[in-house]
Amino acid sequence: MEKRGSLLVISGFSGVGKGTVAKKLVEKYGYSLSISATTRQPREGEVDGREYFFKTVDDFKNLIDYNGFIEYARYVDNYYGTPRKFVEDELAAGHNVILEIEVQGAFNIKKQYEDALLIFITAPSAAAIKERLVGRGTESEEVINKRLNRAKEESEDMDKYDYIVINDQVEDCADRIHAIVQAKECLLGNNLKFIEATKKELEQL
Amino acid sequence: MEKRGSLLVISGFSGVGKGTVAKKLVEKYGYSLSISATTRQPREGEVDGREYFFKTVDDFKNLIDYNGFIEYARYVDNYYGTPRKFVEDELAAGHNVILEIEVQGAFNIKKQYEDALLIFITAPSAAAIKERLVGRGTESEEVINKRLNRAKEESEDMDKYDYIVINDQVEDCADRIHAIVQAKECLLGNNLKFIEATKKELEQL
Repeated sequence: MEKRGSLLVISGFSGVGKGTVAKKLVEKYGYSLSISATTRQPREGEVDGREYFFKTVDDFKNLIDYNGFIEYARYVDNYYGTPRKFVEDELAAGHNVILEIEVQGAFNIKKQYEDALLIFITAPSAAAIKERLVGRGTESEEVINKRLNRAKEESEDMDKYDYIVINDQVEDCADRIHAIVQAKECLLGNNLKFIEATKKELEQL
Repeated sequence: MEKRGSLLVISGFSGVGKGTVAKKLVEKYGYSLSISATTRQPREGEVDGREYFFKTVDDFKNLIDYNGFIEYARYVDNYYGTPRKFVEDELAAGHNVILEIEVQGAFNIKKQYEDALLIFITAPSAAAIKERLVGRGTESEEVINKRLNRAKEESEDMDKYDYIVINDQVEDCADRIHAIVQAKECLLGNNLKFIEATKKELEQL
């Protein structure tokens, strides 16, 4: 099968369950999940190569120099980047690839992969967004307020995405994202060669 | 629920199984199927109000005068039309509506309903198209050749549709069409009000 996979860029509010939805897409539909590289310290329970590839600043900068990332960005004092080889190999093998990245990275991806699907995941309402931030119960009020302010900032960019998907139930949300990918495969522009072939074959009948 | 349904226009080669796919969408996903009016004579087994609403030429012309069709066309000596009231009532009630119509009618629909989804159903190959025409076993070689020529003509318009969907298995084909509708519901342009509401609510938190 020579058909390339689709590239999905998934962003969304903190706590909205992007990771869980991505995991469901991997489990249920066999999507490939890109793992980012970062220079930030691992948090408790994080494993190198599972949550992130943890890199020194020198190693990260070296990878930048060798064109090893399809996008990278600096947040606060840390670098985050999307390794190029994994994404390109998986797409070429016909697998759909998920990048769970921030707004800035999403737009950088779109510049290079114009048919990437930019998907913003949100909760059914702002109250639900707040509830999910608070609901984790693991963070101080200060951190929650910081995230809430961050959410307000992120909401400013929602209307630059191609698709808005509500995460009410993880499986429904994953199904809707898979529907977006299926619809893309049926788009006229992705079937022009097939149409040409059908026309030619019909002429020969 | 104030959300309008989606309007699907389904065309495709003769014998490709459009009717079976439409039926599956009705049964599995609760879509509404528009029934056309026609002035042609009922064939054996056809029931008024099931396959078509059978009309006299006078009645049909009267309905044209009263703006009763969203589109109508004349093929050979018969008129075919899509009753307006059913389509508009169903869309307003939030139901997805299927029109199984010819190329000419499809383009007339798109002029009036610019967000209608124009879907062309095809077989996996030209050989499969021919096989299905022959496979029915109910028609003479002359009729089959006529249909084959018709298929060649129809193929000329394939690339004016929004989506190309292959009918390899009826259920898969119906699922793909349903995916197209779900993806449309997630499109940015169909969520602008929701985004505005989310932004406002976030500001008030």
